Amino acid sequence: MKYGIALFPSKKLQDLVNSYRKRYDPNYALVPPHLTIKNAFEASEEEMKTISQELRHIAQEANPLKISIKKVSSFSPVNNVIYLKVEPTDELIDLHNKLHTGGLESKPEYSFVPHITLAQQLSDDEHSDVLHRLKMTDVSHEETIDRFHLLYQLENGSWTVYETFLLGKDCK
Amino acid sequence: MKYGIALFPSKKLQDLVNSYRKRYDPNYALVPPHLTIKNAFEASEEEMKTISQELRHIAQEANPLKISIKKVSSFSPVNNVIYLKVEPTDELIDLHNKLHTGGLESKPEYSFVPHITLAQQLSDDEHSDVLHRLKMTDVSHEETIDRFHLLYQLENGSWTVYETFLLGKDCK
Repeated sequence: MKYGIALFPSKKLQDLVNSYRKRYDPNYALVPPHLTIKNAFEASEEEMKTISQELRHIAQEANPLKISIKKVSSFSPVNNVIYLKVEPTDELIDLHNKLHTGGLESKPEYSFVPHITLAQQLSDDEHSDVLHRLKMTDVSHEETIDRFHLLYQLENGSWTVYETFLLGKDCK
Repeated sequence: MKYGIALFPSKKLQDLVNSYRKRYDPNYALVPPHLTIKNAFEASEEEMKTISQELRHIAQEANPLKISIKKVSSFSPVNNVIYLKVEPTDELIDLHNKLHTGGLESKPEYSFVPHITLAQQLSDDEHSDVLHRLKMTDVSHEETIDRFHLLYQLENGSWTVYETFLLGKDCK
């Protein structure tokens, strides 16, 4: 089964992000707006029991994360993904690193650029247009996220939440 | 903000249910296949802190639920909803009742008929056709569900998971 780990921002930010994704992100219907903190990985249901334990431990030792967004950016020319750039705070990088070591060891495909996708799979022209327009929008936003979610992917490509992990809670 | 509480069945069952929902359920993209245990209700984020505490307490005192599906049924003529009927075990009814008392007091619009929706908003003719066909399918299925999920609704109608609650776990 394919699993992934993500942070969901507040409803307010999700609604804003969806107003763009609706038009510009083919994955709009597959998962709510999110910040991926560990990319899709394969694990058996048996392995997930151990991994869940480890995630609880990691969550317990972490603190709620302040996230700060200042601008819209793009992964172009690597790919035409337009996103809200989330400032890479020490806390966020630390959580990302912990989710890629120990029983969760895996080498990320790309270096960690915390982001919330607004648009993807656009043609080069549409990508330039949308990026240009979004860059002129004020997207400044700050909030605190106090949990992360472990999700699994269904056959249709959509994601279901398996479990939430509260940051800084001392038992579960 | 609008919240709801649901059980997600196993990936296997979700994939099967989605194979029907894809064609016959306009809510297909808004939420994964689920068994609603408390219908949508309004609450402020402040109220949800107390409610979350209460949900933790309820989950802690409950046990994992065996669910058993034996047939396909319909809410017609009330509405054209076709669903997998989930046997109303004492444990399931008890959890439903606890989620409608105390700080969670609310009077359900309909009596509790545990179900997983396969199709809805069909014309009368299509409803009859699909129901007739599905009634001939063997849908026998049993599994154990060990958690429930509190979700909230975004402006586009889709649902994001706020938190999972593990049944029978003794702290969080």
